Amino acid sequence: MNSGPERPLILLTCGDPSGIGPEVVAQAWNHAPPHEQARLRVVADAAVLDAVLARRAGLPQARIIPVPLADARPSRPGELLVVEPTGAAGDPAVIRDGTITSAGGRAAAAAVEYAATAVLNGLAAAVVTGPLHKEALRAAGYDVPGHTELLARLCGLGDAAASMMLWLPAAGGRTALGVVHATLHEPLRTALGRLSADLITTAGQRLHEGLFTLLRRPPRIAVAALNPHGGEGGLFGDEEQRLVMPAVARLRESGVDVTGPLPADTLFQKAFRGAWDGVVALYHDQGHIPVKLLGMHEAVNITLGLPIVRTSVAHGTAFDIVGTGLADPASMLAAIDAAARIVAGRGLTAGAFPSC
Amino acid sequence: MNSGPERPLILLTCGDPSGIGPEVVAQAWNHAPPHEQARLRVVADAAVLDAVLARRAGLPQARIIPVPLADARPSRPGELLVVEPTGAAGDPAVIRDGTITSAGGRAAAAAVEYAATAVLNGLAAAVVTGPLHKEALRAAGYDVPGHTELLARLCGLGDAAASMMLWLPAAGGRTALGVVHATLHEPLRTALGRLSADLITTAGQRLHEGLFTLLRRPPRIAVAALNPHGGEGGLFGDEEQRLVMPAVARLRESGVDVTGPLPADTLFQKAFRGAWDGVVALYHDQGHIPVKLLGMHEAVNITLGLPIVRTSVAHGTAFDIVGTGLADPASMLAAIDAAARIVAGRGLTAGAFPSC
Repeated sequence: MNSGPERPLILLTCGDPSGIGPEVVAQAWNHAPPHEQARLRVVADAAVLDAVLARRAGLPQARIIPVPLADARPSRPGELLVVEPTGAAGDPAVIRDGTITSAGGRAAAAAVEYAATAVLNGLAAAVVTGPLHKEALRAAGYDVPGHTELLARLCGLGDAAASMMLWLPAAGGRTALGVVHATLHEPLRTALGRLSADLITTAGQRLHEGLFTLLRRPPRIAVAALNPHGGEGGLFGDEEQRLVMPAVARLRESGVDVTGPLPADTLFQKAFRGAWDGVVALYHDQGHIPVKLLGMHEAVNITLGLPIVRTSVAHGTAFDIVGTGLADPASMLAAIDAAARIVAGRGLTAGAFPSC
Repeated sequence: MNSGPERPLILLTCGDPSGIGPEVVAQAWNHAPPHEQARLRVVADAAVLDAVLARRAGLPQARIIPVPLADARPSRPGELLVVEPTGAAGDPAVIRDGTITSAGGRAAAAAVEYAATAVLNGLAAAVVTGPLHKEALRAAGYDVPGHTELLARLCGLGDAAASMMLWLPAAGGRTALGVVHATLHEPLRTALGRLSADLITTAGQRLHEGLFTLLRRPPRIAVAALNPHGGEGGLFGDEEQRLVMPAVARLRESGVDVTGPLPADTLFQKAFRGAWDGVVALYHDQGHIPVKLLGMHEAVNITLGLPIVRTSVAHGTAFDIVGTGLADPASMLAAIDAAARIVAGRGLTAGAFPSC
């Protein structure tokens, strides 16, 4: 366990304050383990956070204490240490729970911009983000596909620079699993048209590097096939031979412990029994169906390929349950844990992230 | 519980005798419940079955008793009642465990042809098939994509006449679920090109009818979306609006309790918690990933659209574990149970299968 001043500073954002983000942050804060791994801060407008939390049911009691970013004190349950983003004095009155508003989008963007910049400048070790709403972001004038692209741009990189690793911690008899997608947020037809050995190779490399840092050992990874029964020897499609096999060969040549292509419908069952630490999925639902089926509330997004450590809850703003006390902080807790492990792992395995 | 003579006659086939089919049949036979639901017979060459079972480890003791199809006796554990397919006197020496052979393919085809013809002619109520190997079938001169198409042709219908419902019985906190695919054994790109409101509507109708017969009540069904996040309002593809919504509207007009399109990555989690009895999946892996993840060994295939009741194990020949004692009879047991329920349900809900 780190002693106070040596613990890394990890910044949490609530995402859109109209969603469940502030609730899961406040609930996670009430657990002891995160504070043993890091000095936590919430990046938020204190007045907005105070007003929002006051009207949500089922939250632990916590005092909101604004602190400067440079403050070195450890964090602990009961005292929400809030760092306010510069120039974002918010008006609590314009935040409406469970509703898409430009104010909500603006608040979410201001917090993540502040936090990412602090990490980029070496003033904090990592940022853990809560869920934002893309339409609220757009209403606030941010024309980005999502959180990850916004962060890539803040880091001076293109939208495609970052990959997302979906990470499901071990629980209840299943082993932990990381998933990186070769294609993600686009129509399935477009994804199939774009799929290439290069995209699969890049996904495999990032998965390898991300898992290496997280697990602190060389991970075993598998690449999913695209077609039914893994293409059934060419009978059900040729992408396995044409795209996946060359990518697997290139990954293996570069020293990655990799196998594939493997039929996707049995691959995940074996992976969650410990056969592999990570899977390259070829399209969004191929990776998301199994991960969400087994760990709807515990999954974490880990951003790979950026010069900052960033993890995120894998759930959305869940406008329909805001303030009901039903929000589950498991994903936020797992995201903080993953960020702390990556920060620790980076120190041990310098260069594991090639872009860092 | 039916008394002896009133129990329906259900024919089991072992599939390819080189695979685990004979083992799972022999293991399932040793359980009492199937014999309470039906009079069971194994359709097989008695000499081949005897020779194959004798060399497989971990099987229950059972005497092989050849009987004519017209024999009315009830079945029970310990006595394997075998009906031999006409003119298929097999040579046990040519069956090699765990190997693709034309003899294995020929034996599998002979058994299923005999059994299906018996059901078609009203001499038996249903056929439950073990796993065959497509390459062995091809080596034996049968140029069909698989079991279901072979059965469709035996019924005088085209390959596309039949649909398969993947059925996972309830277990360990999850509710039962039936899945019918709008497209299945073809390259994913071809499937996306062929996907249509008609295919989705037909899948939904067959799912509705199949579940109605199995559950004996109107089922609640959901239709999966094709694209990430269900298309994200058109941002990630238009198939939801163009193909799925019209199909859902048509199904609803015809009286089906249906909802959709719904994002596939959260749909299955909700379905297994009881939100729906069945899901229309748009392509192979979309339905197979979640079902195999939760019930690798218990899943059953139920053929819909044919004039005969046929269920099947959902696993393959598993050549790698033949004779090791690792084969699990859960799918065979569930397939017998499903066949018996459908036979009973058909009597109660005449016409639920439009083609019967």
